[in-house]
Amino acid sequence: MIVRMSPEADDRQRERILHLLRERGYEVMALGRGGSPVIGVNGKPLAEDLPAFLSGQPGVEQVVQTDRAYKLAAREVRPAGTVVRVGEVAFGGPEPVIIAGPCTVEDRDQLLRTAEAVRRAGASMLRGGAFKPRTSPYSFQGLGETGLELLAEARALTGLPVVTEVLDTEHVELVAEYADMLQIGSRNMMNFALLRRVAATGKPVLLKRGFAATIEEWLLSAEYLLAGGNDQIVLCERGVRGFDTATRFTLDLNAVPLVRQLSHLPVIVDPSHGTGRRELVPPMSLAAVAAGAHGLIIEVHPEPEQALVDGRQTITPETLADLVRRVRALNAVTAGVLAGV
Amino acid sequence: MIVRMSPEADDRQRERILHLLRERGYEVMALGRGGSPVIGVNGKPLAEDLPAFLSGQPGVEQVVQTDRAYKLAAREVRPAGTVVRVGEVAFGGPEPVIIAGPCTVEDRDQLLRTAEAVRRAGASMLRGGAFKPRTSPYSFQGLGETGLELLAEARALTGLPVVTEVLDTEHVELVAEYADMLQIGSRNMMNFALLRRVAATGKPVLLKRGFAATIEEWLLSAEYLLAGGNDQIVLCERGVRGFDTATRFTLDLNAVPLVRQLSHLPVIVDPSHGTGRRELVPPMSLAAVAAGAHGLIIEVHPEPEQALVDGRQTITPETLADLVRRVRALNAVTAGVLAGV
Amino acid sequence: MIVRMSPEADDRQRERILHLLRERGYEVMALGRGGSPVIGVNGKPLAEDLPAFLSGQPGVEQVVQTDRAYKLAAREVRPAGTVVRVGEVAFGGPEPVIIAGPCTVEDRDQLLRTAEAVRRAGASMLRGGAFKPRTSPYSFQGLGETGLELLAEARALTGLPVVTEVLDTEHVELVAEYADMLQIGSRNMMNFALLRRVAATGKPVLLKRGFAATIEEWLLSAEYLLAGGNDQIVLCERGVRGFDTATRFTLDLNAVPLVRQLSHLPVIVDPSHGTGRRELVPPMSLAAVAAGAHGLIIEVHPEPEQALVDGRQTITPETLADLVRRVRALNAVTAGVLAGV
Amino acid sequence: MIVRMSPEADDRQRERILHLLRERGYEVMALGRGGSPVIGVNGKPLAEDLPAFLSGQPGVEQVVQTDRAYKLAAREVRPAGTVVRVGEVAFGGPEPVIIAGPCTVEDRDQLLRTAEAVRRAGASMLRGGAFKPRTSPYSFQGLGETGLELLAEARALTGLPVVTEVLDTEHVELVAEYADMLQIGSRNMMNFALLRRVAATGKPVLLKRGFAATIEEWLLSAEYLLAGGNDQIVLCERGVRGFDTATRFTLDLNAVPLVRQLSHLPVIVDPSHGTGRRELVPPMSLAAVAAGAHGLIIEVHPEPEQALVDGRQTITPETLADLVRRVRALNAVTAGVLAGV
Repeated sequence: MIVRMSPEADDRQRERILHLLRERGYEVMALGRGGSPVIGVNGKPLAEDLPAFLSGQPGVEQVVQTDRAYKLAAREVRPAGTVVRVGEVAFGGPEPVIIAGPCTVEDRDQLLRTAEAVRRAGASMLRGGAFKPRTSPYSFQGLGETGLELLAEARALTGLPVVTEVLDTEHVELVAEYADMLQIGSRNMMNFALLRRVAATGKPVLLKRGFAATIEEWLLSAEYLLAGGNDQIVLCERGVRGFDTATRFTLDLNAVPLVRQLSHLPVIVDPSHGTGRRELVPPMSLAAVAAGAHGLIIEVHPEPEQALVDGRQTITPETLADLVRRVRALNAVTAGVLAGV
Repeated sequence: MIVRMSPEADDRQRERILHLLRERGYEVMALGRGGSPVIGVNGKPLAEDLPAFLSGQPGVEQVVQTDRAYKLAAREVRPAGTVVRVGEVAFGGPEPVIIAGPCTVEDRDQLLRTAEAVRRAGASMLRGGAFKPRTSPYSFQGLGETGLELLAEARALTGLPVVTEVLDTEHVELVAEYADMLQIGSRNMMNFALLRRVAATGKPVLLKRGFAATIEEWLLSAEYLLAGGNDQIVLCERGVRGFDTATRFTLDLNAVPLVRQLSHLPVIVDPSHGTGRRELVPPMSLAAVAAGAHGLIIEVHPEPEQALVDGRQTITPETLADLVRRVRALNAVTAGVLAGV
Repeated sequence: MIVRMSPEADDRQRERILHLLRERGYEVMALGRGGSPVIGVNGKPLAEDLPAFLSGQPGVEQVVQTDRAYKLAAREVRPAGTVVRVGEVAFGGPEPVIIAGPCTVEDRDQLLRTAEAVRRAGASMLRGGAFKPRTSPYSFQGLGETGLELLAEARALTGLPVVTEVLDTEHVELVAEYADMLQIGSRNMMNFALLRRVAATGKPVLLKRGFAATIEEWLLSAEYLLAGGNDQIVLCERGVRGFDTATRFTLDLNAVPLVRQLSHLPVIVDPSHGTGRRELVPPMSLAAVAAGAHGLIIEVHPEPEQALVDGRQTITPETLADLVRRVRALNAVTAGVLAGV
Repeated sequence: MIVRMSPEADDRQRERILHLLRERGYEVMALGRGGSPVIGVNGKPLAEDLPAFLSGQPGVEQVVQTDRAYKLAAREVRPAGTVVRVGEVAFGGPEPVIIAGPCTVEDRDQLLRTAEAVRRAGASMLRGGAFKPRTSPYSFQGLGETGLELLAEARALTGLPVVTEVLDTEHVELVAEYADMLQIGSRNMMNFALLRRVAATGKPVLLKRGFAATIEEWLLSAEYLLAGGNDQIVLCERGVRGFDTATRFTLDLNAVPLVRQLSHLPVIVDPSHGTGRRELVPPMSLAAVAAGAHGLIIEVHPEPEQALVDGRQTITPETLADLVRRVRALNAVTAGVLAGV
């Protein structure tokens, strides 16, 4: 069960509700940030009269009951949807957000040129890997802190907020110092220690879906962040494991309207990893927005063939510019089809 | 290798090429219909000088070499793409084709009302199952020939061409008598005897992807139809088996731009089976068209809740009408993004 | 619901039960062969007092209720399990049955040599494809009726009963003339027209699992055969589609004890297709028997490298001989572990 | 490329080889523990004459070339296979190792009773979760350090070495203090920071396969441990994500003989998670050993129905005792079938 306090409710009223619940033996979670305060109630079967009792308490706006495994991530908590702000960028608003940049920060020149190019192409946020999760220990693992410094420099140059991945609990504070948004990658979607630590930073989070994660498991990983007091979460569908090697992954766009129906969190799509093929990125980007995605995260490089990592799935700034134009026009047509959703 | 004859080439010239190839010990396949004649060459390693030799022969327009498993289905055979015509409907042209109708023909009143409603909603073709492939022997198996007669009556009433599934080699001629287009369902994608028999009718074919078929396997099933002399083929992505039960299938939209790149055959999408959830049909329909689909096939019923089969994934004529409007507008925005493809 | 008649029940008593049920508006299915007669009851909710009423009728041995989708395939119908006999071979008895032979009948010499070799190696049945389902229309499709004649000759020579695949409803009678057991391949598991026709022959059937079929779908395909009056069915697990290309398919041995728990039908395993790698065939054959498989079907060729089809997954008669010895010894150890199952 | 030093080689000789390689611009990795010293060579294309040159150097026993993505994990490095010792337990030896215990350490009484029971049943090692990776933040997360203390007490009582999971880089040293073997769970198979930290402890590691990890990805995760100087690795197949919900996961036993062929590391199987159904645990345990598994890890609880976690897939000590007897007998029959592998 979730108790939503009214925006006017003061801390005293909220503390009182927490107290009332605790003394009745429930586990409570206070979710404070990014909107009206919310209290999650768990831990034992609810007394029948509890919802009515709580609804009558001062400061309580709404009592929401759900039998879903995830509670704070459920749509019912915020029927209007959550808007996640990163600087002036808003995920979950009327306009799709386009994040672009290189797979990996390779060097100063490459990053700054790419950052400038994606800004000109109309992207509103910069991506780039400083710590890279590589399947092989012999592959380039990223520049680490140097990469973070370069990302900060690129932000200063272009004004674009920066999202980058954090791989290890020990690097969370470090990455949080530099980045505007922390990415939790597919391989770490169920790294619960990392989720808890990232939640604690209060930074906006980009939570990628694990490549064999069900929608429910994905929302439960978001629930770890929410239960940790952080609701600045953007979900990212990036393809699941399939049986056909013709594409790197199977981009599961069903997940987009489904997640919008089940949860209040914004959801974006990564067509670069989701296809693994450069020439599929533009059409699948449009498909993602048409399906209701709140944005895209796309790998861009001035010379894709020269990219150290993932060149095969990387597009040029020129292709990005054309894509951005199409996405804007497309959004005008498709907006509202999910109204019912 | 494929030899494309020029449109002006006469039968004598074509027979001569077939003769030249046979006497050199190659297996040849003549593909006559739907455009300039094409000859497929297989069966043994090609002599190095063969392409040059053939290019010099009267009536030969182009010699195409491909090492793909499928030959006649390869894009190279018709770079401009194949347009499949069913009456006045054209798959592979500038406008997406929308096929709509009930999952199953239940009775005269239901079918005629639905047909009239989908016509008014702007659909250009009617779907409806007379022979149904049911997982359980105890489920309703369709009305059979009576269903076919009702479909013909619905066509007479609305002017909409009709597509319906054929399940068994023994029913091919019967279904071909009534239907304008024959559907081969997912469960029969690798029913090669059925493919051969359907090819022989010369009727346009809707070839659904098997739910665990790779793109190559799918195109090889199309190759059975092509090698049988029938190139009036429309491919249909309808979702593959995935690990998440939140949706009935995983709609693999990556397949759409990929198939357009690999093959000259038009490809449409079935968002009804591909999601299994009514509320996901509109957004995923838009996503499919944005990805480059040449059309959609959608389950529609005046009272979805009353449908004997698949009601859960069936939309109303009203929803269809709104969707048709959006698809038209969307197509204007996305057309051309696949130009490169 | 299923009504099992006692072995002593005469036809009159059975007809009377069928009549009693029909006059109450139920759909009934009589399953006569291979054991005590069974009557399946479907079509409408059961009256509460029906089981008690029927139990009291002369000739009725047991009334079994199940809410599973499949009825006649359910374990409850024959708790002791069904034994399927092909000549002197018994599937479902104490000894695992080993079927071996070439993927495809290539020519007289190859087949007779292989047949003789697998007999000497200890196999109790011969496999070989006359009609082959090939993904590509350009691949060798089998020798057809000539292949069937050669199989009959090999049986005459070795005394081994023969199982071979039937692909098309039109060939069912032809194949049934020559073969002792009809195989329905994975690609046709949901070819319901073929299932019905094969059921009608009354011949023993080897029903392979489709490569994306759930256990329930597989048992429902068996239910088509059972509802058609044929209970001489042996199920065959042969691998499902997975995401890893290191093996051709993912051999799902979980299916073996699970099917034994859910159904009374014998189940065997095909480690050749299930692995696609010759060197994995022996260990996975032992694993299959240890999991409770009632037998194995293995591709064997005197010179695997020379095999026209599937040589990569084919073992030699020498390897088979060693394997047969191990299987016998293994069975003594594992028998009974499934007693609880 | 891998250079294997002879057991008699002294450090000076080894240093010399490392030096020779470094000065030629190669990346070198020294793998010292658990057998004769091995040096991995990477980083740039190998000079043609390098292998011959190195083979001639004092102290060099063998030069192994492999083009596999993983190097130190490749079978070629130790054709005889690696034996991993945990106390007196040896993985990779002639006898399968059976690890048993509760999914989760719940309390002192439950753990000690279970530990004593599994010892009596013949298990040679104890499992039990102190830090639990739970999909939901609201599920019991384990007793943490208290759980570790109880495991140590259970070891003192029974003499059984203990394996338990570590979830977070920050807990590695803590868990290493108490446990004899560190488990890296499926969800963390690609948590590379954790792999590096665990490698550094020098403790034996149980590396579970991720539920959508390919065999190559799994061996590359092992490569992280090996490259970190730790070769005391036991791989564990525990089921992959499949499309059928009839079992919790699809236990991929093909992986067992395949891994034995590709790598020198021992591999065991977890039939509890791999099936999710108690009644499938015994048959699939036997199947795993028949397939060549070097051991099993099984969830056991005195009252499975009372288990806080995973009771559905937990067996009793009585069932375990019977299973242990069968495994011993089975091993005698199947040993050697993989000789060729």
